[in-house]
Amino acid sequence: MSPTAKPPRITAEEFAAVMRDLVPYVGQLGIEVKTLGFGTISLVMPASDRLLRPGGTIAGPAQMALADIAMYGLVMSRLGRVDLAVTTSLSINFLRRPEPAAMTAEGRLLKLGKRLAVGDVTLLSEGLAEPVAHAVVTYSLPPAKGLAGEGK
Amino acid sequence: MSPTAKPPRITAEEFAAVMRDLVPYVGQLGIEVKTLGFGTISLVMPASDRLLRPGGTIAGPAQMALADIAMYGLVMSRLGRVDLAVTTSLSINFLRRPEPAAMTAEGRLLKLGKRLAVGDVTLLSEGLAEPVAHAVVTYSLPPAKGLAGEGK
Amino acid sequence: MSPTAKPPRITAEEFAAVMRDLVPYVGQLGIEVKTLGFGTISLVMPASDRLLRPGGTIAGPAQMALADIAMYGLVMSRLGRVDLAVTTSLSINFLRRPEPAAMTAEGRLLKLGKRLAVGDVTLLSEGLAEPVAHAVVTYSLPPAKGLAGEGK
Amino acid sequence: MSPTAKPPRITAEEFAAVMRDLVPYVGQLGIEVKTLGFGTISLVMPASDRLLRPGGTIAGPAQMALADIAMYGLVMSRLGRVDLAVTTSLSINFLRRPEPAAMTAEGRLLKLGKRLAVGDVTLLSEGLAEPVAHAVVTYSLPPAKGLAGEGK
Repeated sequence: MSPTAKPPRITAEEFAAVMRDLVPYVGQLGIEVKTLGFGTISLVMPASDRLLRPGGTIAGPAQMALADIAMYGLVMSRLGRVDLAVTTSLSINFLRRPEPAAMTAEGRLLKLGKRLAVGDVTLLSEGLAEPVAHAVVTYSLPPAKGLAGEGK
Repeated sequence: MSPTAKPPRITAEEFAAVMRDLVPYVGQLGIEVKTLGFGTISLVMPASDRLLRPGGTIAGPAQMALADIAMYGLVMSRLGRVDLAVTTSLSINFLRRPEPAAMTAEGRLLKLGKRLAVGDVTLLSEGLAEPVAHAVVTYSLPPAKGLAGEGK
Repeated sequence: MSPTAKPPRITAEEFAAVMRDLVPYVGQLGIEVKTLGFGTISLVMPASDRLLRPGGTIAGPAQMALADIAMYGLVMSRLGRVDLAVTTSLSINFLRRPEPAAMTAEGRLLKLGKRLAVGDVTLLSEGLAEPVAHAVVTYSLPPAKGLAGEGK
Repeated sequence: MSPTAKPPRITAEEFAAVMRDLVPYVGQLGIEVKTLGFGTISLVMPASDRLLRPGGTIAGPAQMALADIAMYGLVMSRLGRVDLAVTTSLSINFLRRPEPAAMTAEGRLLKLGKRLAVGDVTLLSEGLAEPVAHAVVTYSLPPAKGLAGEGK
């Protein structure tokens, strides 16, 4: 599942449009593509007062939305547009309080099967060296969109 | 941890204001309190086009925000206002595609210790009998706010 | 998914044999069936010095084995013998230190689809009123064994 | 949290003894230390018929025990002997069916705070290039054993 020199099956511009347009509740976050490769992704969520929670840090729901869409992008980087891929589980640990600053999501695919994709996403906060959150996300793939020749 | 006849340590009106005011990204969801008891909670998130994802169902990030704040309410129902309680982990399984309709969250406390609270939240979609998602959420409690006389 | 008066599709005796014989590493735990209904299960794991960890409590791996097999039993209570059903994920929170005593697992199905079953399992320690652990477990079902007419 | 050239705070021999002696149910697995550094660990669990499940693969409970103890070792590699550190949560995704062969666990610390340690563990099966399972594990640290000067 390691990245290769192959080009991603969706361009950064196309995936930026997916993030902006498909779900308004997520689109308003203004998440941008930093890098997108074949099975690799890095996204940036700009800081916004609307995302702050008591204590002056980025609220958990914004972090979870970021992790979730990073996995969506990872799947599309390998399979192309699969809008109907859906999250089946997301498990996140919040490790440290993020700064009221931009956050970066770095995704990694752990499995891409016929029906199921699994990856993990590490969230970083601008100005902090250590990760602020770590999520494991699974997606169910629409029939005939997953990789042939692999197990479930 | 079973509910008792004690009154909740925060009123439904107070917690409605917490949900509306503390984090704009969550406040915009317009989540309402259906019932709030001492260690029990039921919330309703109204349907909105802004929450729909491809396939015509409520997007995962809105469901996660709902589950997260339901646990916040459970904690406050037992401890009163603890704005600085923070989510330390959230693990959700999406079980069925919700209707493009209102969602209800039913929360249950599994543990309320000195430093940590754990609960689970079942999400229901108006018109569907079976739950559409199930989350387990843990919160870290500010010092001197958790229950004395219990383990971590 | 609530239990009904239907009889389980596997008897308590049959499932006791499954637990004892299929995997020696699990069989040695001597787990017994307390009750088994159609979509309900209660198991008991006897105390043993071999399961204790520093601090004098039951080690996590034994608790996880108990939670995992409780879900296996739940699936078989609805579908009959499906030895090839396999765990796809398990997420457990350890809530309190169990006594060096027998443990009970109470299982509940959250979803039983064509390909996937999801349930949660609450672990109790003899002599303690509050649960000591809570697990959410998902199983992948062999083709043509899951329930027809449901989503994934 | 990246590994450094510092020596681990427990030797490979000492941790091998911890794995063998502390919990008989885990000790019987015969898990060996492949490498142990300051914040890094690689363990090997030998194949055994006692661990096989229907389908001829290594049973989930043995994989969970391996992931759990790998995290225990990671913690001790940084803090020295802390037998009373306890697992507070473990979340595992089983990605592919392992061979009936030796398994390797590669651990990584995501956070080491005063009270809590979080890491992830990737499980590999001899002869398979892709990981067969991925776990995220949190441990609660005994007072005065965690790192000073960090958040919870």
